[in-house]
Amino acid sequence: MDAILHGDEALLRPLLARHPNLASRITLRHAERVVKMEDKPAQVMRHGQGTSMFSTIDAVKDGEAAAAVSCGNTGALMAVSMLRLRKLPGLNRPAIASLFPTPTPGKMNVMLDMGADVKADPGDLLQYAFMGASYARNGLSIARPRVGLLNVGTEEHKGRAELHEAHRLLGHSAEAGSFDYVGFVEGTDILSDRVDVIVTDGFTGNVALKAIEGTARLVGDLLKQSLTSTLMAKLGALLGRGALKRLQMRIDPRRVNGGVFLGLNGTVVKSHGSADATGVAAAIGLAYQLAQVRFLERLAARVASAEAAGQDAARVEADRQQAGPGTGGIPTE
Amino acid sequence: MDAILHGDEALLRPLLARHPNLASRITLRHAERVVKMEDKPAQVMRHGQGTSMFSTIDAVKDGEAAAAVSCGNTGALMAVSMLRLRKLPGLNRPAIASLFPTPTPGKMNVMLDMGADVKADPGDLLQYAFMGASYARNGLSIARPRVGLLNVGTEEHKGRAELHEAHRLLGHSAEAGSFDYVGFVEGTDILSDRVDVIVTDGFTGNVALKAIEGTARLVGDLLKQSLTSTLMAKLGALLGRGALKRLQMRIDPRRVNGGVFLGLNGTVVKSHGSADATGVAAAIGLAYQLAQVRFLERLAARVASAEAAGQDAARVEADRQQAGPGTGGIPTE
Repeated sequence: MDAILHGDEALLRPLLARHPNLASRITLRHAERVVKMEDKPAQVMRHGQGTSMFSTIDAVKDGEAAAAVSCGNTGALMAVSMLRLRKLPGLNRPAIASLFPTPTPGKMNVMLDMGADVKADPGDLLQYAFMGASYARNGLSIARPRVGLLNVGTEEHKGRAELHEAHRLLGHSAEAGSFDYVGFVEGTDILSDRVDVIVTDGFTGNVALKAIEGTARLVGDLLKQSLTSTLMAKLGALLGRGALKRLQMRIDPRRVNGGVFLGLNGTVVKSHGSADATGVAAAIGLAYQLAQVRFLERLAARVASAEAAGQDAARVEADRQQAGPGTGGIPTE
Repeated sequence: MDAILHGDEALLRPLLARHPNLASRITLRHAERVVKMEDKPAQVMRHGQGTSMFSTIDAVKDGEAAAAVSCGNTGALMAVSMLRLRKLPGLNRPAIASLFPTPTPGKMNVMLDMGADVKADPGDLLQYAFMGASYARNGLSIARPRVGLLNVGTEEHKGRAELHEAHRLLGHSAEAGSFDYVGFVEGTDILSDRVDVIVTDGFTGNVALKAIEGTARLVGDLLKQSLTSTLMAKLGALLGRGALKRLQMRIDPRRVNGGVFLGLNGTVVKSHGSADATGVAAAIGLAYQLAQVRFLERLAARVASAEAAGQDAARVEADRQQAGPGTGGIPTE
């Protein structure tokens, strides 16, 4: 794998010089300016020419790079990606998908949207399901992903009206999307073995993602405190060091933080703003894998089939409503 | 403290007989039926007479009990509580408030709504802020609680339009509610020292609560696995046992799970459906404390002042919009 590194040459050249092995595989592309974390997406879209973010996305647009990786301002990155790469034909809202640890070693769950957009209507949630399942198949090698819709309970009557409509759409369209629809799932299921893909709007997904991060961080900090609180505990921690280290690897958000933008004409991986070398390496690894399996072409085909499936489901639903209640025949009712 | 225990006498009498100390302080109140976890709230409201849930709530309504504690079906419990106790004057939507651990030993954060209602408009969020602050003052002894509004980022332009309106309302009304408004907070802040009260709608709150529970459970399970994976790790776990036990106490959801229904003419504490003796004891302890400090009277006064503050804020807001942009003078803009 070769890479193009976009940014201030004066700053990056000396850093690269310290790693000759790496330097031989990296092309430096100078960019005058950077997008700052506090910059508003709309401003960046209008005045962002010449930034390393524009340059990175344009390399994908021009076919020079197979995928983009950035640790920058998420809102601006999504805005610039939409502006330069454009949405896939037939897609309404792109989404950010992130990976989450589960009780099974090496098994990850996908959740989307993590905050590309703060709202999603039932048709958007259907497209998220198709895109999330495609990502799980191609990025995580899960042949037939189990997809769940995030709600406040698993019973059919729970939650908002839009979710009930999305629930019916997903039930009707699972076959077309080559996934199994497991129905409503709850917050406790995000890190569970019950499901592979969790579908939700970007507001809820972003809050859940950050609540999970905050919990993992608090438990980790308290564990460290506990294991240095007494001499006995310190000795215990010393003996259990290998095991604790393996645990940390499993739940380390830096290792699993590669968020992927789904629904654009190009693959963009967003790494956490506070990612260190481990986190950035994980994001680059993910971008490489997705490019290898030609994920983008497969995703585009799935988005097209989601559109058709949504129309089919809407037709079935209209027939059902016209026929009135009690006529049966709709399996998810 | 004395208690009235509502349920099947044939089942409960022998259980009580095994604990003579407890039995002397408990009055058994026979109830023919129970509300099941899968019962729909609307059905329970209509046909729930004679259940232990109705009997428990009616004891509060009739002034016989100072507070109610239940581990039952949350939706049904809220529905029955609303039906029998009625909402406080001026309140639109009652809320469920739950407690969360923080990095500071003994310090808890309050978040509401945890799912009493799946939606909340800006006026509801203002009432939640007043009620949450009152709960933090009276239940957690925080003299001047710091209140935050849950969003997908701390910047003012982030999130949904309703949240921007709620943000302005809370900024205008903090003084009237005797709290400090810290602005938008994120999912990572729920378990942090940045804030004491986190305000959100019941859908988002319920998902965040369950995501936090799921994360704490997964990390705990993985920790147990890790510490029994090798002989060295087992020895380490043995030495660190005391420290690990203390950690477990801090983050144990059973100890902090007492959810409180806010906004009704009576105090109702909802314990987790899967709570064990420790969890139920924590919920009873919380109900006792709230009854002791006459929380209900104080809360009712706060709800009344929230109504007035909301009207004031709406007036200021209307003036601001009439005056047009750029006239300044609104501190939260």
